[in-house]
Amino acid sequence: MKKKLNIGLIGYGFMGRAHSNAFAKVNHFFDLDHQVVLKAVCARDASKVKAFAERWGYESAESDWKKLIERDDIDVIDIATPNNTHAEIAIAAAKAGKWILCEKPLSMDGEEGKRMVDAVAKAKVPNMVWYNYRRVPAVTLAKKLIDDGRLGRIFHYRAKFLQDWTINPELPQGGAALWRLDVKAAGSGVTGDLLAHCIDTAIWLNGGIDKVSAMTETFIKQRPHQLTGKVEKVGIDDACAFLARFKNGSLATFESTRYARGHKALYTFEINGEHASIFWDLHDLHRIQYFDHRDEGQVRGWRSVHVSDGDHPYMKNWWVPGLQIGYEHSFVHQVADFIKGIETGKPASPTFKDALETQYICDAVLKSGKSHQWEKVTSIK
Amino acid sequence: MKKKLNIGLIGYGFMGRAHSNAFAKVNHFFDLDHQVVLKAVCARDASKVKAFAERWGYESAESDWKKLIERDDIDVIDIATPNNTHAEIAIAAAKAGKWILCEKPLSMDGEEGKRMVDAVAKAKVPNMVWYNYRRVPAVTLAKKLIDDGRLGRIFHYRAKFLQDWTINPELPQGGAALWRLDVKAAGSGVTGDLLAHCIDTAIWLNGGIDKVSAMTETFIKQRPHQLTGKVEKVGIDDACAFLARFKNGSLATFESTRYARGHKALYTFEINGEHASIFWDLHDLHRIQYFDHRDEGQVRGWRSVHVSDGDHPYMKNWWVPGLQIGYEHSFVHQVADFIKGIETGKPASPTFKDALETQYICDAVLKSGKSHQWEKVTSIK
Amino acid sequence: MKKKLNIGLIGYGFMGRAHSNAFAKVNHFFDLDHQVVLKAVCARDASKVKAFAERWGYESAESDWKKLIERDDIDVIDIATPNNTHAEIAIAAAKAGKWILCEKPLSMDGEEGKRMVDAVAKAKVPNMVWYNYRRVPAVTLAKKLIDDGRLGRIFHYRAKFLQDWTINPELPQGGAALWRLDVKAAGSGVTGDLLAHCIDTAIWLNGGIDKVSAMTETFIKQRPHQLTGKVEKVGIDDACAFLARFKNGSLATFESTRYARGHKALYTFEINGEHASIFWDLHDLHRIQYFDHRDEGQVRGWRSVHVSDGDHPYMKNWWVPGLQIGYEHSFVHQVADFIKGIETGKPASPTFKDALETQYICDAVLKSGKSHQWEKVTSIK
Amino acid sequence: MKKKLNIGLIGYGFMGRAHSNAFAKVNHFFDLDHQVVLKAVCARDASKVKAFAERWGYESAESDWKKLIERDDIDVIDIATPNNTHAEIAIAAAKAGKWILCEKPLSMDGEEGKRMVDAVAKAKVPNMVWYNYRRVPAVTLAKKLIDDGRLGRIFHYRAKFLQDWTINPELPQGGAALWRLDVKAAGSGVTGDLLAHCIDTAIWLNGGIDKVSAMTETFIKQRPHQLTGKVEKVGIDDACAFLARFKNGSLATFESTRYARGHKALYTFEINGEHASIFWDLHDLHRIQYFDHRDEGQVRGWRSVHVSDGDHPYMKNWWVPGLQIGYEHSFVHQVADFIKGIETGKPASPTFKDALETQYICDAVLKSGKSHQWEKVTSIK
Repeated sequence: MKKKLNIGLIGYGFMGRAHSNAFAKVNHFFDLDHQVVLKAVCARDASKVKAFAERWGYESAESDWKKLIERDDIDVIDIATPNNTHAEIAIAAAKAGKWILCEKPLSMDGEEGKRMVDAVAKAKVPNMVWYNYRRVPAVTLAKKLIDDGRLGRIFHYRAKFLQDWTINPELPQGGAALWRLDVKAAGSGVTGDLLAHCIDTAIWLNGGIDKVSAMTETFIKQRPHQLTGKVEKVGIDDACAFLARFKNGSLATFESTRYARGHKALYTFEINGEHASIFWDLHDLHRIQYFDHRDEGQVRGWRSVHVSDGDHPYMKNWWVPGLQIGYEHSFVHQVADFIKGIETGKPASPTFKDALETQYICDAVLKSGKSHQWEKVTSIK
Repeated sequence: MKKKLNIGLIGYGFMGRAHSNAFAKVNHFFDLDHQVVLKAVCARDASKVKAFAERWGYESAESDWKKLIERDDIDVIDIATPNNTHAEIAIAAAKAGKWILCEKPLSMDGEEGKRMVDAVAKAKVPNMVWYNYRRVPAVTLAKKLIDDGRLGRIFHYRAKFLQDWTINPELPQGGAALWRLDVKAAGSGVTGDLLAHCIDTAIWLNGGIDKVSAMTETFIKQRPHQLTGKVEKVGIDDACAFLARFKNGSLATFESTRYARGHKALYTFEINGEHASIFWDLHDLHRIQYFDHRDEGQVRGWRSVHVSDGDHPYMKNWWVPGLQIGYEHSFVHQVADFIKGIETGKPASPTFKDALETQYICDAVLKSGKSHQWEKVTSIK
Repeated sequence: MKKKLNIGLIGYGFMGRAHSNAFAKVNHFFDLDHQVVLKAVCARDASKVKAFAERWGYESAESDWKKLIERDDIDVIDIATPNNTHAEIAIAAAKAGKWILCEKPLSMDGEEGKRMVDAVAKAKVPNMVWYNYRRVPAVTLAKKLIDDGRLGRIFHYRAKFLQDWTINPELPQGGAALWRLDVKAAGSGVTGDLLAHCIDTAIWLNGGIDKVSAMTETFIKQRPHQLTGKVEKVGIDDACAFLARFKNGSLATFESTRYARGHKALYTFEINGEHASIFWDLHDLHRIQYFDHRDEGQVRGWRSVHVSDGDHPYMKNWWVPGLQIGYEHSFVHQVADFIKGIETGKPASPTFKDALETQYICDAVLKSGKSHQWEKVTSIK
Repeated sequence: MKKKLNIGLIGYGFMGRAHSNAFAKVNHFFDLDHQVVLKAVCARDASKVKAFAERWGYESAESDWKKLIERDDIDVIDIATPNNTHAEIAIAAAKAGKWILCEKPLSMDGEEGKRMVDAVAKAKVPNMVWYNYRRVPAVTLAKKLIDDGRLGRIFHYRAKFLQDWTINPELPQGGAALWRLDVKAAGSGVTGDLLAHCIDTAIWLNGGIDKVSAMTETFIKQRPHQLTGKVEKVGIDDACAFLARFKNGSLATFESTRYARGHKALYTFEINGEHASIFWDLHDLHRIQYFDHRDEGQVRGWRSVHVSDGDHPYMKNWWVPGLQIGYEHSFVHQVADFIKGIETGKPASPTFKDALETQYICDAVLKSGKSHQWEKVTSIK
């Protein structure tokens, strides 16, 4: 008989749905000692949260997150609310001894993130941040290839996350749907929303970053607020590019924007090593491009690997070779790994502490964007 | 309050899992008047079927499909067993007044399929066959583009379904996992397993087929049986290619094999019209390639459309632009359409009768492979 | 001091230009004992041929090909005229002891081709047919990989040559520019023009073809003649697809059309062996796709080989890795190989005899298109 | 009767061959009032230069470039020697009233380049620098699309030039073949060799650059000298990445390296505008990727345009649609445009002055790589 693991989800937006789907599916596809139970969902609008609970099969609904945290029948608090609420909820949940899943980015900045890290450390509760792209099978495979030493000395890393959905100057900022454009709710623009993903993957694959030189831009200076209609100054960064030096001596370029016409969610990374190179692209997430210089010369080329075989990460749990999975599965994998991490005593990454490292890099990037200087990244201990 | 729709699934192999996942997810993502209930699953091995029921949340398990059909609390019988059992189960389910979902191909041949069609017609029960690729969003989009008349007169259709998993001559035939290699269970090889998919899509997109000239081959003539170890003659077709004439005057080539090294499940089709052409590939199922000659000359080219926007078929129910879905979602869409078809009184395709047309074409193909003549396809009335 | 090799070219259309370019460039890039000299060009229109001679640096111009053949200062007769003139010119040139280069296809049919083969055999003159695609470096590399035995037993071959330039029904037939649409000048439509290329490559890579089953179509039944304006019946095949059995037991599909919207000159072939597969596409002719099952599983994939390195066929004679060559270079390579073949006593292929084999296959294809039967290919001795 | 245009080429390395090929071919394919004559080639090694002259059909050979410049029968001096010799030769040629073609980069630095610009201005002689990529048809098409205003306001520009040929630490520096690794001959590493190409294209397509922040690296610190075998410090930049602000407000990232395993000569650029975006890749130089947001939503996608039609730049002079040209053709186009520019009185770009702008940007990049500050680009008047 499996142990029950009762989830209390806060927030029912895009991420609330993605997490719920993962909770609902994980036991169908992964062998775990725990049975995940969709126990409660919480959001301010009582009638909407009730409808959400019915649709997804949550047993109950709450409209005050503090009450949810107080409930004894909740094991895990899952935070899927705007960035400016993460810290308060997470710290309260830690104090209540809950296990915590927190949507990315961890926090509004490094200082706030540090307090969250301290809180979970003090409470000794399992914790994880939803940097889901680590668990796209192709990305997990990249990690494995690098850790196996196949690339040799690393010379270059480059990552981009390009979108085009805010080019229209009529698009309002703020409100439930567009809080990502509101600096008060989001903390920053593409840096926290998109580059944070790129950075999380990068430090996982290639180690820490030493210093950065960044350039940021806000192309559309004013937008109407979605709720009030009032035209207000835009506080977020629409675009950000930065140069970086990794601790292992490799050079990097990072770029993100919401003004790259033609790209919906083009997160790509490439890593060039002495012997081999790897490229990945979110738009075709089930493939990885791999080049190995040790292949015989005349038939050497970039290999397009369709990551759907039984010996590819996570894939033996799904269908048969050639049949791809999608975006949402990365969340299923993350829940599975989180639970397995607890069952085996080897916590799954990225923990709050891992995510704090990303936060410090984002801070340095935003600082450099203003100072027009190279900025050193705060060390994590 | 939604009406319950109680599912009784027979078979728990690869397709049993794909169907179960669809039943479990459909209400999370689609607005329906019915609530799907995983009521019972049935298979011969009582202990295995119980484990499957637990994993997927089926309320009960059966080991005799006749008992399942007798149960009053079952609304829908879903047949996910080997091909040679479809007819008996479906006809019995029809007599019992159950709604019926049947895995493809419909039957062992056209004669058997005709009896199934007659049975559901007589019983007036909703029925559908799981030709799931019609509901990959990119394929559904292709259908829409063609029906809108964008392609103009159609000149050519070509489809392939290439795999490479049976090249190893040591691979046995038969048994639970490998019944697709056993002619007694499967009826045929690649023709019924893979070309049936190509044909179903083709007649949906481009209308009926008149006549065919086929070539079939069994490369490995003998294989050990998985259960007995005894080496036996291989009865299935390892490869099959055929020329065809559509009723609309267009020319077609079809090919399938399990001996195309490098291809896992490369189902592709292309259709060339007077004005525009469309290409699709299962290995990158979330994209469609579209060429429109009416585009201005100097910037005319094949467009790689990432089918993940809100105005693409089914996609507003999932995530955001750029984030792809996978293979399993085509089954979710099919359940949603089946239920909506009943709710609206417009039955979703392909019905048993639609699938019989594919069966008649498969029969003509296999006959031509033996007669070395062009063979006429039996008309469906 | 190099020996002079005096060329006499007949015809100055598209192919006359391609050949002239090859003659002009070959000594710049290849080390040969002979110096190619553009001695004379011949065509009926005296003023146009003079202008062509001036542009390309031919030393003289003729307007009667019989006179050209009589000239003592001509070593090589190069035939770049419409198909229906090849035999008469080639046989006369052979009698005059000239070396002969003939544009493809060799002849109007196998019977005529056989007479040409007999003529060059009797005269013992070097001869070659311009099936230039054999000498695209990527294709030559494919030949090398196959001859090295890397693919193992061959199961499948498939080739296509798709175009879309004759869809417009207003397009006239006949005349200087459009003789390829006139059955009297061309002999056939896509079969001789495009499938002949596919067949030549196929038999070079995979050996002889035993029998075929074909389907042909003429979509536009009548067209105005370019010179008279009179609407006449179209005699050529607009499209042709056929199934084939190679002598080595492998199965093949071939298809060509000028009605595949979106494709300009999409000649592709793929060959699937037990261990490895190869794919090539004329639209990206400097690449080859190679899949090797012996690669380690988790990083196995199709390799996109950019055929531009010094160890790739012909490429050390051009630029540096990464810098591609184009279509015209295949002709340069063919001239280089023709001359080297003579210098070394190992004649370069395809000779007239090699090209006759392609002619016999085309004959069988056209015959099958009419008989609706499988047709046996005439053996070449 | 065409006017003769007598070329005097200095240098016979890789670029000497590329230029010679262009001179030899240009009149075959382009209609000009001038007939290009390969009059003389000059290099220090008398026997080697003689062999080169014979191979390419140069009428004479010289071993002292000063003599070549003195010759009355030379109209054009073409400089294809290492970078550190450009200035002296060009200034002398200008004084002698010769027309001048100079291989890129123009000079060792901006100061030297300025003197060259002044010299040709004073002498009023036609001049051009071989930034050949402007005349790859796909790149020329990009220019046309941008100038037509199709992209609207430009937000982003990104360019890369990635190679992998110097990863091996045993590779020597210096000497005839490897002078690009010798800072004394080359002036810089990837900045002058590769980024100069990226910059030239960028300022042509998107206007001037205001300021840059760069990062440079020399991965292999010491290498043996090719001639002496002595191990010496490496003075060039192996890799360089920089952020930039264009004068039109758009943001840019540039990167070049010779340590990107898997890339031979991967020069790519992308430009994102309000309405449309363009991407190009030297490894598939005959294609351009074009995205237009004004396309209808459900069939909107990146178009892969095969730039081989008669209405594409330069292509009506070559073959037929679908048949691609290669790297070397960009040089043919440049000679054609240079001559046409003189014939029409509209000088073809890039002139020495245009190339000086690139030089100033390279200077700022190298300076920023050392200062770790944003550096302003020197204005050109």
